[in-house]
Amino acid sequence: MIVVMKTGSTKQDVEHVVQLVREMGLKEHIIVGEERTVVAVIGNDRFKDRTVLESAPGVDKVVPILAPYKIASREVKKERTTVSLGKTDASIGGKRIGVIAGPCSVESKPQLLEIAHAVKESGAKGLRGGAFKPRTNPYSFQGLAEQGLELLALAREETGLAVVTEVMSIDQVALVHRYADVLQVGARNMQNFNLLNAVGEQDKPVLLKRGMSATLEEFLLAAEYIMAKGNTQIMLCERGIRTYEDYVRNTLALAAVPELHRVSHLPVVVDPSQGTGKSQLVDSMCRAAIAAGADGLIVEVHHDPEHALTDGAQSITPQQFDQMMKSISRIAAAVDREM
Amino acid sequence: MIVVMKTGSTKQDVEHVVQLVREMGLKEHIIVGEERTVVAVIGNDRFKDRTVLESAPGVDKVVPILAPYKIASREVKKERTTVSLGKTDASIGGKRIGVIAGPCSVESKPQLLEIAHAVKESGAKGLRGGAFKPRTNPYSFQGLAEQGLELLALAREETGLAVVTEVMSIDQVALVHRYADVLQVGARNMQNFNLLNAVGEQDKPVLLKRGMSATLEEFLLAAEYIMAKGNTQIMLCERGIRTYEDYVRNTLALAAVPELHRVSHLPVVVDPSQGTGKSQLVDSMCRAAIAAGADGLIVEVHHDPEHALTDGAQSITPQQFDQMMKSISRIAAAVDREM
Amino acid sequence: MIVVMKTGSTKQDVEHVVQLVREMGLKEHIIVGEERTVVAVIGNDRFKDRTVLESAPGVDKVVPILAPYKIASREVKKERTTVSLGKTDASIGGKRIGVIAGPCSVESKPQLLEIAHAVKESGAKGLRGGAFKPRTNPYSFQGLAEQGLELLALAREETGLAVVTEVMSIDQVALVHRYADVLQVGARNMQNFNLLNAVGEQDKPVLLKRGMSATLEEFLLAAEYIMAKGNTQIMLCERGIRTYEDYVRNTLALAAVPELHRVSHLPVVVDPSQGTGKSQLVDSMCRAAIAAGADGLIVEVHHDPEHALTDGAQSITPQQFDQMMKSISRIAAAVDREM
Amino acid sequence: MIVVMKTGSTKQDVEHVVQLVREMGLKEHIIVGEERTVVAVIGNDRFKDRTVLESAPGVDKVVPILAPYKIASREVKKERTTVSLGKTDASIGGKRIGVIAGPCSVESKPQLLEIAHAVKESGAKGLRGGAFKPRTNPYSFQGLAEQGLELLALAREETGLAVVTEVMSIDQVALVHRYADVLQVGARNMQNFNLLNAVGEQDKPVLLKRGMSATLEEFLLAAEYIMAKGNTQIMLCERGIRTYEDYVRNTLALAAVPELHRVSHLPVVVDPSQGTGKSQLVDSMCRAAIAAGADGLIVEVHHDPEHALTDGAQSITPQQFDQMMKSISRIAAAVDREM
Repeated sequence: MIVVMKTGSTKQDVEHVVQLVREMGLKEHIIVGEERTVVAVIGNDRFKDRTVLESAPGVDKVVPILAPYKIASREVKKERTTVSLGKTDASIGGKRIGVIAGPCSVESKPQLLEIAHAVKESGAKGLRGGAFKPRTNPYSFQGLAEQGLELLALAREETGLAVVTEVMSIDQVALVHRYADVLQVGARNMQNFNLLNAVGEQDKPVLLKRGMSATLEEFLLAAEYIMAKGNTQIMLCERGIRTYEDYVRNTLALAAVPELHRVSHLPVVVDPSQGTGKSQLVDSMCRAAIAAGADGLIVEVHHDPEHALTDGAQSITPQQFDQMMKSISRIAAAVDREM
Repeated sequence: MIVVMKTGSTKQDVEHVVQLVREMGLKEHIIVGEERTVVAVIGNDRFKDRTVLESAPGVDKVVPILAPYKIASREVKKERTTVSLGKTDASIGGKRIGVIAGPCSVESKPQLLEIAHAVKESGAKGLRGGAFKPRTNPYSFQGLAEQGLELLALAREETGLAVVTEVMSIDQVALVHRYADVLQVGARNMQNFNLLNAVGEQDKPVLLKRGMSATLEEFLLAAEYIMAKGNTQIMLCERGIRTYEDYVRNTLALAAVPELHRVSHLPVVVDPSQGTGKSQLVDSMCRAAIAAGADGLIVEVHHDPEHALTDGAQSITPQQFDQMMKSISRIAAAVDREM
Repeated sequence: MIVVMKTGSTKQDVEHVVQLVREMGLKEHIIVGEERTVVAVIGNDRFKDRTVLESAPGVDKVVPILAPYKIASREVKKERTTVSLGKTDASIGGKRIGVIAGPCSVESKPQLLEIAHAVKESGAKGLRGGAFKPRTNPYSFQGLAEQGLELLALAREETGLAVVTEVMSIDQVALVHRYADVLQVGARNMQNFNLLNAVGEQDKPVLLKRGMSATLEEFLLAAEYIMAKGNTQIMLCERGIRTYEDYVRNTLALAAVPELHRVSHLPVVVDPSQGTGKSQLVDSMCRAAIAAGADGLIVEVHHDPEHALTDGAQSITPQQFDQMMKSISRIAAAVDREM
Repeated sequence: MIVVMKTGSTKQDVEHVVQLVREMGLKEHIIVGEERTVVAVIGNDRFKDRTVLESAPGVDKVVPILAPYKIASREVKKERTTVSLGKTDASIGGKRIGVIAGPCSVESKPQLLEIAHAVKESGAKGLRGGAFKPRTNPYSFQGLAEQGLELLALAREETGLAVVTEVMSIDQVALVHRYADVLQVGARNMQNFNLLNAVGEQDKPVLLKRGMSATLEEFLLAAEYIMAKGNTQIMLCERGIRTYEDYVRNTLALAAVPELHRVSHLPVVVDPSQGTGKSQLVDSMCRAAIAAGADGLIVEVHHDPEHALTDGAQSITPQQFDQMMKSISRIAAAVDREM
């Protein structure tokens, strides 16, 4: 890191900073500029708390140089990670693009099976569907819990799709692990560090959603939590961020896709359903995501959105999904990828 | 709610909306305007999912009319709630302003006791200090856990201050409950609904921090989760929101104080330490918060910020805290409050 | 619009609202719900100031129903507008995608001509290049002014490219009009209403950039200003919005492309250079923009970014531009468009 | 500035950066860290374009050290600037707090005079009122233009209040200068650089409003534009920023007050009317602003908000203004200021 001293800071201030740097087990290098003095800190300060130096007298600011994550970083692992989708032959992160689709919530056996068969038919490899639902409102439908997981397992049996479903809390990890192929950590839990630690101890892949106002650094540090516990099978999922925009539920930040690929080896999945909140925008954002280099998509599909128990407004129908799959396979070919 | 039809929507579209409204157990009222038709929905639709109607053909948008929370609302309870701070005579929400102060993290016995005695001396009523720390980086100091809680209890014994400390996960609730007077739910956990349910079942007050990009509606719905489980002793804590501003860690949105007072009966506490992330801004933001009508403050104080294990840059010293208490007691008098 | 009364509003409050509505020349329709009364306003209230009603006693909020813009709206004109690029055979808004490329600033004759010939060669139809530069810092290079315009005209003569260049102020309009084929209004001037009026009186097309924190409604109202003066040849340009994201200069909101197409008949151009601020992200965002349905692109190209007088970090080289053009023509084909 | 090289950058990359630095007339200082090399640039690089270096191969990022503004900076001028309000004895920036109040728009002679007399009576020193109105919608009331200015001059004659009014465009500068005591530059024009230059050449003070998504650095650079032309009589006005918050029109960022005081010598005025957009929040935000250290306030007052031609929802009545003035004078005393 670089410690920038204030104009007018004294020699003592600089000496004091040097002392603090040495206390951290690091070395200093002082550069006296025309107007300001800066102290460059030499050594691995990746895991040091730089706010400490910000408190010292005469210090203006402290600029980090090293990325604070390590295992998730492309500096450490150059080759791209691929994540298998359960026992299917599909994986996410290679040349082939993987699509996960299904209802927002598991509602009933006929609902889930109808949708599962339809999305399978259109080329999906994974089945999404929430059994535990994080709902903003305590009085809203909260999911079918274990019964929902059983239905997901049944749908997998019938269709061969890999099951991707959310785990909301550490006490659900063992249960969800029993039924799911991929453990999803939702946006609201991206910094639920106890949950990150818990899924980090599992032997199944994790779909980690970006928090609704998380920076990419915070996102990768959340991945680092999981990886530090030994689970390196992570898919990063861009799902839109909160901004002032009011025609969408979230602003889908697609530049995150190439940027995450630049700084990390983990595969990137895009969620245009959450990422816009509007079914009429899903199709074009799926195309844009693949064109931007996404390794996969996760899409909400419902055969009867008007009666969906959750998120009807952002669900597309199986017919629309089928159309979308055709249109993205053309985009995939145009960027030398396959479906 | 009000269903706004698109220009050019058909009679069938409107009839279909009417049918969906009736399926929800509600009544409709159709208004044909010069350019648009709108369907006003009559009845208690507070807990209905309006996104369902957004999926219907010919619908442009659905506008909610009723606030989605109830127990937290001032419509239901006009008189203001006051929350007691443990066994002290202090409470938050009445004429008297309550100040909670202490280190970001509990680090050691001498550290905690020195700070606790100092803030007590200056007029604080509660002692803050994290034993479990939500850290963005997995390699950072994560708190002393139960040992930290024991030290907090010791500090309470020595000073009489009420202990306010964070609980991060449902498996910590029983433990933290044993030692703390007030259970804090952090910003990153504001929508950790399982945790909200768990603290809702406790018989101790909760300090609920606003999520870093939560709307006030989402904030009050998080309070509603806790209250729906029976625990109505909640302090709402404004701690700054994430914006594009770069001279602060968060943008402290002080208009939230009078607005929360307008729509809810719960007391409002402001955290200018997290709310700015800069020790040099804490003093003026404490004054501004009290002038805006805050019922309390929570402030990070450390006797040696340069060696604090966490958040040194936003901690003020006991001397600065003492000055600040003097300056806010003048502001309190100017708004007819007491310290 | 819909006037939502507060819980507990009186009969007199409602009568007063009715009176205000009638004063506006509109009619009311009162709906008494179980908890709230709402007053639906009938008539063309598109251009009425709804904040007036928000001030009336007993009013909770006022919800607009009609979009406040008219000429820019697709409700008024269903067929899509195409905008010609000067005397070239190219236009923006039809099946063919048009690309405008060139340096951020016109710096010198050899610089401009080298870049112009290169981008022409690769398939660009328009030449961008600032002669008047809006610079955040008063001490930065401010552009070559008329000399820059002369060089742009020369480059057009040599290459046949249409000239797209920014006009910053009403006193520059006549001058820029003399040289340019398309008048660009920059993001910082999107709500410089006097300038909008002035370009509205010209007979040349306008490339209107979205303000850095403008809503789509504000964006379309800015277009409406220009159109209300008689100039309907407008290209809307999405160039990224300001958010908390820190790995980009702006967050490119690509969902704006299909949404603008849904609500307006005007063509949409995307600027991935400004929209990201990072040359390494331009290529993938160009692809994503075309996949999302953009009608055109505007891209910063410099043969020597290290010595560019402005915006070197977001400029790609002619070689990179040539590659990009090849890759987007594949995407264009995949969405049934042509280059 | 500090140039941070990528991990894996070569010796040639570093040499190339050194060459670019020397071309700029600056000197380099190379620091080889354990993982990264950084090149510290020595010399006054305040006005150099750092994006140039970001384009060089092997460069990861470039971190500025010096603030890019100079005349507006407190580093250059330690003593605080005070700005006189016309020929009144009042000024903004000293111990005394100055309040500017009046209608959003000048609507008529009786309207303006009634309000002017009322706010004068309650202690205001300046009269606000727009004769030229920047309106989002082209069909909205655009102000009375010169007739409005004449009415403002008349109100000054009758009350002695200093006239503060907006100039929207360079062609209005001479006219507005003839009537006004203070030239206001609105938020939408904060980066209308031609207008900034034009008001910089006037001999009357400027009230410069922060742009709706401007950083403090951009805000101070806009002030620097004006000051570089010779006009140093500037009041900085915080008027709220655009965020995702939906209960307010803007989020009033009061921490900007002490931060602007820390980095600049210019006085700071707060606009709680624009800063919230809700009349019911104005009173508490006025108190908070003064408690935070603001040197002045600018407040919208209308005797009949329901019939105001603009911004009725955020205008308080003369009675409410009178109450507010009493309450802020108590706050002023509590922070050792006077009214």
